[in-house]
Amino acid sequence: MNINVILFPNFETLDVFGPVEVLGRLDDVGIAYYSLNGGIIENSDNIQIVTQAISELQSDKANSVLFVPGGFGTRQEVLNTKLMQAIKEQGDTSKYVLSVCTGSALLAKSGLLDNKGATSNKRAFEWAMSTNSLVKWNSKARWVVDGKFYTSSGVSAGMDMALGFVADIFGIEEAKKIAFEIEYVWNNDKENDAWARHI
Amino acid sequence: MNINVILFPNFETLDVFGPVEVLGRLDDVGIAYYSLNGGIIENSDNIQIVTQAISELQSDKANSVLFVPGGFGTRQEVLNTKLMQAIKEQGDTSKYVLSVCTGSALLAKSGLLDNKGATSNKRAFEWAMSTNSLVKWNSKARWVVDGKFYTSSGVSAGMDMALGFVADIFGIEEAKKIAFEIEYVWNNDKENDAWARHI
Repeated sequence: MNINVILFPNFETLDVFGPVEVLGRLDDVGIAYYSLNGGIIENSDNIQIVTQAISELQSDKANSVLFVPGGFGTRQEVLNTKLMQAIKEQGDTSKYVLSVCTGSALLAKSGLLDNKGATSNKRAFEWAMSTNSLVKWNSKARWVVDGKFYTSSGVSAGMDMALGFVADIFGIEEAKKIAFEIEYVWNNDKENDAWARHI
Repeated sequence: MNINVILFPNFETLDVFGPVEVLGRLDDVGIAYYSLNGGIIENSDNIQIVTQAISELQSDKANSVLFVPGGFGTRQEVLNTKLMQAIKEQGDTSKYVLSVCTGSALLAKSGLLDNKGATSNKRAFEWAMSTNSLVKWNSKARWVVDGKFYTSSGVSAGMDMALGFVADIFGIEEAKKIAFEIEYVWNNDKENDAWARHI
């Protein structure tokens, strides 16, 4: 399975690397990092990470996960029509599409989530909702699964969703094994986010 | 405050970026990434991150944190006398020294933890202990504080320790605020690690 991570300036650190830690422990998984034009992408934690251009994303889509994080950068990127188009194209052809935090605003704006259930960071929920009124926004969930789309609430919720994704696709024992290995106390109830009351 | 992160090939992803997410939310903090010789450092999750050479680490040490992650790379790096010397020198002059998982084996091997209390990943504990018998290894704690040295158990425990560090230095309310912002359920009892029984 290929995990294709989409990065952009000012992505949120843990949105990306929490799920990467989880998914990277699966057998036969390859993680790759892409951005619209490739090159080094930087964020506010001064992480400079090497990416390939999305146009180079040629992996076997039938066995690929498109992964989109959130972060303050999303406020700019929803206006980036080339990125929106690339996310729509990659999302349409990927087997699964996962987002963390305001990454769901990018999926929503691209049109991928039209008439789909989804969630987002509870403290940025009104803004996320404003990007696409056709999405069935769920303000209570820690993460939402609708067909091939997995969207999570803020930051750390991405790890909980990634473990939920592993449980759904590879079985609950695999998810528990990974949570054990990374010494993570998995919040495994996707229906209830403790942060939901803060909308 | 300067957070100086030491990287090496096959560092563990979340060991680094969990605490970076936490510490990066402090006011007036600057995070920088170093490796022995600088350049791009890669790990098994295919992260390629730009680093500076440790010799360029010239920040105001009186207000600096040296941060050392773990990962499978530590098995090689304990044998890297140049890295051990650099960690010892930087650790001696930094205000605080933090490690996650088997990062404490690097600190121990460098001599920084002689006669200090410390912990490590519980599933690699015997190996960590083998690197230095002068360390007062604590097999029960989620994280250990001894003077300026903070060492944590495996992977996710680094986030719990980072929040504990914030609480100690900047106050409990600041730690709670950051945990809230990143939607993280903080395991805030440093004395008891649920993984301790797996030694």
